[in-house]
Amino acid sequence: MEYILPLQRLIEQFRHLPGIGAKTAARMAFSVLELTDEEAREFADAVIGAKENIHKCKCCCNFSEEELCPVCSDADRDPSVICVVEDARDVFAFEKVREYKGLYHVLGGCLSPLNGVGPEALNMKQLLDRLADGTVAEVIVATNPTVEGEATAMYLARLITPIGVKVTRLAYGVPVGGDLEYADEVTLHRAIEGRRNII
Amino acid sequence: MEYILPLQRLIEQFRHLPGIGAKTAARMAFSVLELTDEEAREFADAVIGAKENIHKCKCCCNFSEEELCPVCSDADRDPSVICVVEDARDVFAFEKVREYKGLYHVLGGCLSPLNGVGPEALNMKQLLDRLADGTVAEVIVATNPTVEGEATAMYLARLITPIGVKVTRLAYGVPVGGDLEYADEVTLHRAIEGRRNII
Repeated sequence: MEYILPLQRLIEQFRHLPGIGAKTAARMAFSVLELTDEEAREFADAVIGAKENIHKCKCCCNFSEEELCPVCSDADRDPSVICVVEDARDVFAFEKVREYKGLYHVLGGCLSPLNGVGPEALNMKQLLDRLADGTVAEVIVATNPTVEGEATAMYLARLITPIGVKVTRLAYGVPVGGDLEYADEVTLHRAIEGRRNII
Repeated sequence: MEYILPLQRLIEQFRHLPGIGAKTAARMAFSVLELTDEEAREFADAVIGAKENIHKCKCCCNFSEEELCPVCSDADRDPSVICVVEDARDVFAFEKVREYKGLYHVLGGCLSPLNGVGPEALNMKQLLDRLADGTVAEVIVATNPTVEGEATAMYLARLITPIGVKVTRLAYGVPVGGDLEYADEVTLHRAIEGRRNII
């Protein structure tokens, strides 16, 4: 027995979401059936509303309701530092820390020649444009600590350093609260390499 | 930094779904932002469409597009057996087995005095109505193997047996493919109690 069609359609929609398998999608679809009409309408409106009202910030390519995102339009942020991230989600991760006061630039992914993602597919030109007027003194490359993220960082460093802008990379090391026993060798190696004086 | 409002609204919608925490909800919401307008519209339509087109089967209270669900309207099913389940999802679980040829009845939950769920909150009257004409010879109570499910089964047995309809319960035992080592004592006890001749 197949699920009835409208249910099947809804399950398939949920399955397209990241990390959602067939069983979870079915559970979610059934829970939608238990919503009131009003609640289902709100759900659907939230989906449409998010798509309609959220655009890319014209400066940093982060998601934004306005032309400029809240970070770019905040006069208190330090315009001399740009933190380059792969993804808009990473911006929210950094903002939660509440320590970083510079600006961001969302690449929209990382270089991945195997998947056919070259520099032109990422928001690199926009980044270079932002460096043109000399305001920016440092670019922190916060791409993911993966092979592709690493390659992207290297590529950006080679591209940007000649302009006279400092390019830095996030520190590698053991995660706070983690257990050394479970740290992989590469991470431990980087942690030893990057060791610092305690006092 | 808060998420921007339309994003926050969408994340909250996802959080209401079962088993979805804050992080997963955020990941799902971000993935919706990456859908095309067309895809987002399809998603929203699927939510609305499921709510609008799916109703309760007027016979067994299962979800259905038509007045009668596919099982109730199937002339090949055996109308003398009714399998009583808590939830419409359970119907789909049984249908996957492809062995059961009788009908179903969806209670819409189980008795739970602590949560204020009494018999009148469940589809029990509809079940009794179906037993009135004498077609049904057996009611298999397939409520969940929990304390509440058990109490509901007992309640139904006391209610239905006097009408002259046989009331049975699913077998308890160790799950197939499971590991005895991890079976709890109550399950093992029931498995021993319900042991059967091999030949």
